[in-house]
Amino acid sequence: MPKSSILVSSDHNTFTSCPLNHSDVHCSMVNNVQRVDDNWRTCTKSDSSGKRNSGGESSKESSRSSTPVLAADRTERLRDKMRRRTESGDHWFSLEFFPPRTASGAVNLVSRFDRMGSGGPLFIDITWHPAGDPGSDKETSSMMIASTAVNYCGLESILHLTCCNQTKETITGYLSKAKHLGLKNIMALRGDPVGADWEEEEGGFNYATDLVKHIRCEFDDYFDICVAGYPTGHPEAESYDEDLRHLKEKVDAGADFIITQLFFRTDTFLKFVRDCRAIGITCPILPGIFPIQGYQSLKQLVKLSKLEVPEEIMQVIEPIKDNDAAIRNYGIEQTVGMCRVLLESGNVLGLHFYTLNREVATMEVLRQLGLWIEDPRRPLPWAVSAHPKRKVEDVRPIFWASRPKSYIYRTQDWDDFPNGRWGNSSSPAFGELNDYYLFYLKSKSSKDALLKMWGEELTSEQSVYEVFTSYIKAQPNCAGHKVMCLPWNDEPLAPETNLMMDKLDKVNRRGVLTINSQPTINGMPSDDPIVGWGPPGGYVFQKAYLEFFTSSENVTVLLKVLKKYEPRVNYHIVNVHGQNTTNAHDMQPNAVTWGIFPGREIVQPTVVDPVSFMYWKDEAFALWIEQWAKLYEDESPSRMIIKYIHDNYFLVNLVDNDFPLDNCLWQVIDNMFELLDNPPEEQPTEQPAEQPAEESPVEDQPTK
Amino acid sequence: MPKSSILVSSDHNTFTSCPLNHSDVHCSMVNNVQRVDDNWRTCTKSDSSGKRNSGGESSKESSRSSTPVLAADRTERLRDKMRRRTESGDHWFSLEFFPPRTASGAVNLVSRFDRMGSGGPLFIDITWHPAGDPGSDKETSSMMIASTAVNYCGLESILHLTCCNQTKETITGYLSKAKHLGLKNIMALRGDPVGADWEEEEGGFNYATDLVKHIRCEFDDYFDICVAGYPTGHPEAESYDEDLRHLKEKVDAGADFIITQLFFRTDTFLKFVRDCRAIGITCPILPGIFPIQGYQSLKQLVKLSKLEVPEEIMQVIEPIKDNDAAIRNYGIEQTVGMCRVLLESGNVLGLHFYTLNREVATMEVLRQLGLWIEDPRRPLPWAVSAHPKRKVEDVRPIFWASRPKSYIYRTQDWDDFPNGRWGNSSSPAFGELNDYYLFYLKSKSSKDALLKMWGEELTSEQSVYEVFTSYIKAQPNCAGHKVMCLPWNDEPLAPETNLMMDKLDKVNRRGVLTINSQPTINGMPSDDPIVGWGPPGGYVFQKAYLEFFTSSENVTVLLKVLKKYEPRVNYHIVNVHGQNTTNAHDMQPNAVTWGIFPGREIVQPTVVDPVSFMYWKDEAFALWIEQWAKLYEDESPSRMIIKYIHDNYFLVNLVDNDFPLDNCLWQVIDNMFELLDNPPEEQPTEQPAEQPAEESPVEDQPTK
Repeated sequence: MPKSSILVSSDHNTFTSCPLNHSDVHCSMVNNVQRVDDNWRTCTKSDSSGKRNSGGESSKESSRSSTPVLAADRTERLRDKMRRRTESGDHWFSLEFFPPRTASGAVNLVSRFDRMGSGGPLFIDITWHPAGDPGSDKETSSMMIASTAVNYCGLESILHLTCCNQTKETITGYLSKAKHLGLKNIMALRGDPVGADWEEEEGGFNYATDLVKHIRCEFDDYFDICVAGYPTGHPEAESYDEDLRHLKEKVDAGADFIITQLFFRTDTFLKFVRDCRAIGITCPILPGIFPIQGYQSLKQLVKLSKLEVPEEIMQVIEPIKDNDAAIRNYGIEQTVGMCRVLLESGNVLGLHFYTLNREVATMEVLRQLGLWIEDPRRPLPWAVSAHPKRKVEDVRPIFWASRPKSYIYRTQDWDDFPNGRWGNSSSPAFGELNDYYLFYLKSKSSKDALLKMWGEELTSEQSVYEVFTSYIKAQPNCAGHKVMCLPWNDEPLAPETNLMMDKLDKVNRRGVLTINSQPTINGMPSDDPIVGWGPPGGYVFQKAYLEFFTSSENVTVLLKVLKKYEPRVNYHIVNVHGQNTTNAHDMQPNAVTWGIFPGREIVQPTVVDPVSFMYWKDEAFALWIEQWAKLYEDESPSRMIIKYIHDNYFLVNLVDNDFPLDNCLWQVIDNMFELLDNPPEEQPTEQPAEQPAEESPVEDQPTK
Repeated sequence: MPKSSILVSSDHNTFTSCPLNHSDVHCSMVNNVQRVDDNWRTCTKSDSSGKRNSGGESSKESSRSSTPVLAADRTERLRDKMRRRTESGDHWFSLEFFPPRTASGAVNLVSRFDRMGSGGPLFIDITWHPAGDPGSDKETSSMMIASTAVNYCGLESILHLTCCNQTKETITGYLSKAKHLGLKNIMALRGDPVGADWEEEEGGFNYATDLVKHIRCEFDDYFDICVAGYPTGHPEAESYDEDLRHLKEKVDAGADFIITQLFFRTDTFLKFVRDCRAIGITCPILPGIFPIQGYQSLKQLVKLSKLEVPEEIMQVIEPIKDNDAAIRNYGIEQTVGMCRVLLESGNVLGLHFYTLNREVATMEVLRQLGLWIEDPRRPLPWAVSAHPKRKVEDVRPIFWASRPKSYIYRTQDWDDFPNGRWGNSSSPAFGELNDYYLFYLKSKSSKDALLKMWGEELTSEQSVYEVFTSYIKAQPNCAGHKVMCLPWNDEPLAPETNLMMDKLDKVNRRGVLTINSQPTINGMPSDDPIVGWGPPGGYVFQKAYLEFFTSSENVTVLLKVLKKYEPRVNYHIVNVHGQNTTNAHDMQPNAVTWGIFPGREIVQPTVVDPVSFMYWKDEAFALWIEQWAKLYEDESPSRMIIKYIHDNYFLVNLVDNDFPLDNCLWQVIDNMFELLDNPPEEQPTEQPAEQPAEESPVEDQPTK
């Protein structure tokens, strides 16, 4: 029996990274031997003359501009990620969820994906509920939940699929739809037959093996395929050995790895793995971990899986079966103990958790095991999507910074995504707003909760300003309710924005209603917990950005002030009718976030793009009405106040180009307030009024 | 008569920049009027709803990635540049040259283009010599000289073309060839008929007008067309008025602007312009300025152009006709005076100089007029090409930094050029080296001069090292000759490199033969006279780079040292046989020069690209043999020494990724020398020898 890791590379090995062996190359150099090293070949993909493709087309391939600049993590397929983690000896985990029954359950589950995704699972998987219309477009279907996890939560996801009693056409249809939605991984299962008198069907799907073969036949190598393993044998199998042979057939048919059914003793799993290896199953085998979370759920699961709970566990549980907390604590303790044994065996690197759609127990287990790692380093400053079409995407307009799911939704029909440079943005077609209020884009708060936060009754524009300041300060409003979100910001302020809280508070009080901002960053380490992103060892930068709604009176004065800040400050000012003023004469995108990393081209993930801004303003203005005004009765004063702001205010964005200097945008707003407070006297001549002596912003010197 | 500038926009007006009228927009805002401003339309190319192309293809167009990031200067056509300069009220100049007779004359003329190009001419033009096989591939032909000016010197250029006695097929052939070579501007001339008994030919090219019509007919609007004006009337014209009517015909046929024949009195030109305007010629009219540079050349030119030299000039010149310096000084003084009058008239913005292929007089006139402006700001850190195919090019590998003409030559067949990002470079097909030693890529020095600089006789590798150090220090070698160039560097050290002279000197003495390097730059202003480039108001950055040849013994030790500098330092080490060692595991390009500019995406013009490096190493190693070894007799000791280096040394490049810290590459080399001087004793175990205590480079902290 081999002593190697349980997780062994699968046959679908397409590993192409470059593990250069220094000592090898080194020796050949010392002796000046002309020797073509195999490793070197892998590296350069070139013969010793350095020529390649010399007869081919030169640089026409669009591939030139689509090299992923960032971590392989975003572009590798699951089985490759798994192998890379295995080879590096990392421990990792994955999480299983089932689809919810109701739309509000779906909204909650998506929030859970975001929270549990932050701990760094290698993947999540979504079970297939044949009775729940699993392949439909319903917001609760297995298909749509898995799609949401991939596209909007950026999670590597496996969709379960059962084939029992299904036609090939139906299965192919599901797989085609999954592929179209960006799903790349399938857990191929037979599923429970409907009725007890199930019999094999000639040419039909009788076993999971048939489904694996079908997927490989119809979709070649597109999907990574996972199959189920039964550490104590499948309940319907004639014998444990017979079941192992079935598992071998599934793997031989093209499965990439195995996730086991839950088990209660580590020996069960470790023996199973040994037996698998003994009959030639070499692919990764992930133990299915089931933290006991309650008496009823344990009973139910055991019934479904036809497993027996060991006596030593039942003896502990029975006496505390009505004490949920006690059972959960026991479950956590028992699971941590099992996982430790598995990991310490040296044969297990990844743990697969049956979460039962709950987070507390699993997160606690993972924390105790040291596997829950909230890495402050994000691959990019914004929330990425895991759709394969978007794997090279690394530039987005800043406007959707607080609404990444909305941006992903509105750009889902794009054929390709900006990579390296935003470029000429005259062509982007953003999705219309009319079909836009999907369940996963809805506010997580109820109408009642929103009314409490944003005011049961608005009496003036000023009362709107107060909602903004309450949100900024994370303090209760005058009715005593904390304002946790705004129509443009579904989450509390980002830590980065917190750095500017006092200044934001001050300007919002006076009707500069900020919805998006970022401070100046001049070369912070890429692993900074607040502003860092990208691979380690790099430096990140930002130009200060400020975006807000404000009245036309303020804009009139602001434009006078902005003349003094040319060309340091770029601005775009637009109202709901599209009346637009800008000093970006050539209408080029302005990079406002970028990073410099070892051995990489520059990454500039966030731009202020003048053309996209016109699409964003439609959304930004619509949110006043759709999310806020519609909370109130038609024709009610509250609704009229929001409507007035929607109709008359301008949306302004400002960029301070001089990132090595102190952010001047607060000074711009201060100057505007000063001019509003001390308006110059009307002059009879054409000469614009002189302003009182003020510090000239252009006399600042770099602080470095 | 209109009092407007002589330079009036032509009919081919395609101006699309965005002169936003603040006060207009402003008013409409104050009054909250919903008004679609024409200026605004120009800016946003959007209707008031902000929607555009909503039904069209989304982002498939490759145009997304080809927006020019930098100044319009690189992408505008000549007539647009001219109009932009005119509208901004700038004064500018242009320069006329004729093709040389000999190949060495061509090499000299190309150097002159580089020198005179640095003063900022709006364009140069190359005359057409019907007797000199002007459309051929000969290195002295009008066609090839103009092509060289555009492609290799990056100069906006006009090719003259005469049509007299030519078939339409021949002319179309010339124009097609010019277009293929990247020429965009034609000076359309009739030319002197061969023989005195010339007669009009039915359907042939009888006048320049016919050529203008032919160009517009066959090439639509591709070329900008210039035609000649005769301030005193064409010598063959029936009358001055008749000649003006011919000029009007040429313009009406599609010419974009006029350059006049030389004249000796400003009144002649100013009257001519008034007369042109009076009959409806509205295009720009550039005065042809002829600085008198010698008695003979004046006589000859006057004879050719059938002009009379005014009495007041002859009276000055005749007495000093044998004193070249005196005549030239008089010519400069007289020309400066004339130009001042023209410029002060307010009717002349651009001056066109007949240089006679000399530089002193014209440069002196331009300096006295304040028009010779050596702007330290370059559009990009490297020498750009003016070929229209390359107008969006803004990324190149650093390896060709000292050989931009070679890079342009070896990539001339590419269909498009990297823009914004180098990307996946596995596809570039670099031109072969075998057809590479073209006249304009040859060393400017003779074999004798090279032998004096690089040694009549080499006695050891050490004597090669001394050549490098003499070059670095710009000091005489042991034979007393200054070393002004090396095979890899045709020019003296760049000012930027001068900053590192002492360190370069030190390492070259010990056989680290540097051929390319740049210091760390952390956010210098873009208008810095030494390291600046790009538009004003930006900041430029560099990662330190060092490239050198060194012995395999040194490389062996260097690799040990480099392990201590991972991942801070990236390296590529290769010998002539292609044996390659690198720690760039994923073989991505590494951006080593970049700039951040107001209202722009990031520009990263220089990368270290692992794949291109393999093409560069072929060139870098070949230069040892082609330029140096071949100076010596076959089998001679000198030649064998160079051959030995070629066969056995390695080409090394190093990048220090930590640009905010002090450059560590010198420390790397120092460590290598220390380890060479104090080799660790051989250890019997497999454990590599411990090095003496040294400062760990990774403990450096950012200096900001």
